[in-house]
Amino acid sequence: MSSSTALLTDHYELTMLASALRDGTAHRECTFEVFTRRLPNGRRYGVAGGIGRVLDAVENFRFGDAEIAQLAEHGVVDERTLEWLRDYRFSGQIDGYPEGELFFPGSPLLTVRGTFAEAVVLETVVLSILNHDSAIAAAAARMVSAANGRRIIEMGSRRTHEESAVSAARIAYLAGFSGTSNLEAGRRYGIPTTGTAAHAFTLLHDDERSAFESQIAALGTDTTLLVDTYDISRGIDVAVEVAGTGLGAVRIDSGDVGVLARQAREQLDSLGATNTRVVVSGDLDEYAIASLRAEPVDGYGVGTSLVTGSGAPTAEMVYKLVEVEGRPVFKRSSHKESRGGRKAAIRRYKDTGTAVEEVVHVVGAGAEPELGPNDRRLQIPLIRDGKRVDDLPTLEEGRERLRRALVSLPWEGLKLSNGEPAIPTVFHEA
Amino acid sequence: MSSSTALLTDHYELTMLASALRDGTAHRECTFEVFTRRLPNGRRYGVAGGIGRVLDAVENFRFGDAEIAQLAEHGVVDERTLEWLRDYRFSGQIDGYPEGELFFPGSPLLTVRGTFAEAVVLETVVLSILNHDSAIAAAAARMVSAANGRRIIEMGSRRTHEESAVSAARIAYLAGFSGTSNLEAGRRYGIPTTGTAAHAFTLLHDDERSAFESQIAALGTDTTLLVDTYDISRGIDVAVEVAGTGLGAVRIDSGDVGVLARQAREQLDSLGATNTRVVVSGDLDEYAIASLRAEPVDGYGVGTSLVTGSGAPTAEMVYKLVEVEGRPVFKRSSHKESRGGRKAAIRRYKDTGTAVEEVVHVVGAGAEPELGPNDRRLQIPLIRDGKRVDDLPTLEEGRERLRRALVSLPWEGLKLSNGEPAIPTVFHEA
Repeated sequence: MSSSTALLTDHYELTMLASALRDGTAHRECTFEVFTRRLPNGRRYGVAGGIGRVLDAVENFRFGDAEIAQLAEHGVVDERTLEWLRDYRFSGQIDGYPEGELFFPGSPLLTVRGTFAEAVVLETVVLSILNHDSAIAAAAARMVSAANGRRIIEMGSRRTHEESAVSAARIAYLAGFSGTSNLEAGRRYGIPTTGTAAHAFTLLHDDERSAFESQIAALGTDTTLLVDTYDISRGIDVAVEVAGTGLGAVRIDSGDVGVLARQAREQLDSLGATNTRVVVSGDLDEYAIASLRAEPVDGYGVGTSLVTGSGAPTAEMVYKLVEVEGRPVFKRSSHKESRGGRKAAIRRYKDTGTAVEEVVHVVGAGAEPELGPNDRRLQIPLIRDGKRVDDLPTLEEGRERLRRALVSLPWEGLKLSNGEPAIPTVFHEA
Repeated sequence: MSSSTALLTDHYELTMLASALRDGTAHRECTFEVFTRRLPNGRRYGVAGGIGRVLDAVENFRFGDAEIAQLAEHGVVDERTLEWLRDYRFSGQIDGYPEGELFFPGSPLLTVRGTFAEAVVLETVVLSILNHDSAIAAAAARMVSAANGRRIIEMGSRRTHEESAVSAARIAYLAGFSGTSNLEAGRRYGIPTTGTAAHAFTLLHDDERSAFESQIAALGTDTTLLVDTYDISRGIDVAVEVAGTGLGAVRIDSGDVGVLARQAREQLDSLGATNTRVVVSGDLDEYAIASLRAEPVDGYGVGTSLVTGSGAPTAEMVYKLVEVEGRPVFKRSSHKESRGGRKAAIRRYKDTGTAVEEVVHVVGAGAEPELGPNDRRLQIPLIRDGKRVDDLPTLEEGRERLRRALVSLPWEGLKLSNGEPAIPTVFHEA
């Protein structure tokens, strides 16, 4: 597989480029802006995810011999355009919300400045990354909120594309998950990986006891035994007989996990395994996690709902041309209201630290809004003259940023139910 | 990026392996089966997608120095297991439904036979591929049915993970889409790619006329002009003025596309551009496509709904251990009924060619069901002794297979509304 990201691109980006190179408009200075018109499914906030992956994709957006040959063979664009692509290297400016920052409808999540030619071709891969990663980030953040301090492990790799799985595992960690089952995410991003056994391991053995004995022998008593292959109550008895009261955890993956967790807790306590944790998994989403708050659950394993964005698999962001040679531009259609001009945003806070509103304003159009003592600018420089800015926030810093940002929301903003965005977006008129 | 697929794997596959190598059960001959307990969202059929990608992933499932180093450094498994993984190469048998075949609840979509050790480690990547690709395949097939012979182009790359986008484009083609916007899918799978221009191209120019003139000059009059950046009626006038009545197509991407398509058709006809096609796009799904049947639409561009599986982003398939050393095994839990034993399936048809039922049976357990003159076996050999079988069906053959399979369904089976599977699954008792 080529490491170039250049063909992760819609055909029309290159035909637009070919036409614009031909008529000379390709070299006009432009600003493209990534934003969303709405949050999906009545969500209260969005979470910026994938910013670092976008910067990697921009760096690797190079047309080598293989890419040029493909385009030439299929006549996608003319020779002049191929020559231009061969030398392609983004040389413009990118600003954006750092990973883990919250966003709202109209927030200028990413601003790409450069010639039309160099900026337009990035549209598809930039949106693919931001739409996927931010969709997972919002779902993951809601789950972490719902878990209210209890550990959550990401284990959804099998329910999504094998490469989406790696990205989703990274984003789950950003949002506060403790770790992932995905080994490639461990390698690529240094995220803790975890896991012990599936039902197949018990079924492989002559009986449950043999399976548990084998697992304890290999992984130690501080492991998690899956106790619901046959009869859960019997499974817990056997687990403690085999491992002793120092058993790390039992996992229940089916049935009414709330009721079963309570029974398991009582049974473990009665057996003296008072420190053995109860972990539940099996089709959990943020609502199921919230409903288990009163139950004696020590940890959650979450799969399908995380990797599919829990009902909102894409963040619905768009990459729109908003400025040409300093002049604001926008599509005039009835139902998709767009505002032209290069924009930035500040977030206003009360003295208590609670967020009040998102103020989006045009940059360099005269009077920008005043920055109060509690307010802060939301975009940071990401790429300058084609080069990645030094010391960009790390994954750990993004994780901390998101944790703090959620604390700053008005309390209604953390409700799981559908509703309005947690804070309003205000367009500042200069 | 490594081309190895070995770490696209859940941590627990390897800890199970470590335990099983230690106690000797790792070498027991096992059968794992991929199936789904239900079709999502009241769908009437599933479509097998990703079979060839699974075989590629199995071939590339090798633990090289980089993979071994990662596992060693993080203590995922012990030295004995690392040694075993270093030599890993799947040497067993895989049978399955060919790509483009329909499946139903309980259909044995893929059967993996080998030692526990060699088969268990494939679980995650096999499911990732099948769950993603089959989810997209079912949505795509419904859209093609709804389009009723009209052309559909896949253009959803920006709304999903950049690698899912490539796979989704391939699957859309399998299902009967004419092509994709995704250039990497063109390179990797030889699928036709297509595209002309976005609103940004018009906004870049001083006016719509300049943009259209530029596009015509670069791409010829047989191109598609996007006419809804400002005023559609004015846009169509300008398009025909610039291109003449030989203009290939106009595209409308916003608004009530049914009404707008009819107006566009009338306007084009009145201008003499009677052969200029009307293409619509913008948040279309199978229901929107169906609702446009009576309108003069020549083609559809479909994005978000295709790449997100139109409400069902995963096919919910599982990879279950069903047989150990010839003995059927199954999890005994109340709500997830599973049947042990290695299985295969036949589909029964009427003399008219209409499918009647899916008969799932245990293999080698005495009397298999009788194969009537109209019936056919659904699994084909895919891997024998670790080697891919020669002359497996191509993408084009899968496309034709699916086209024919949909024709064979009872007419209720093609309804878009929620309901029962198009044909029942019958478990044959020997």
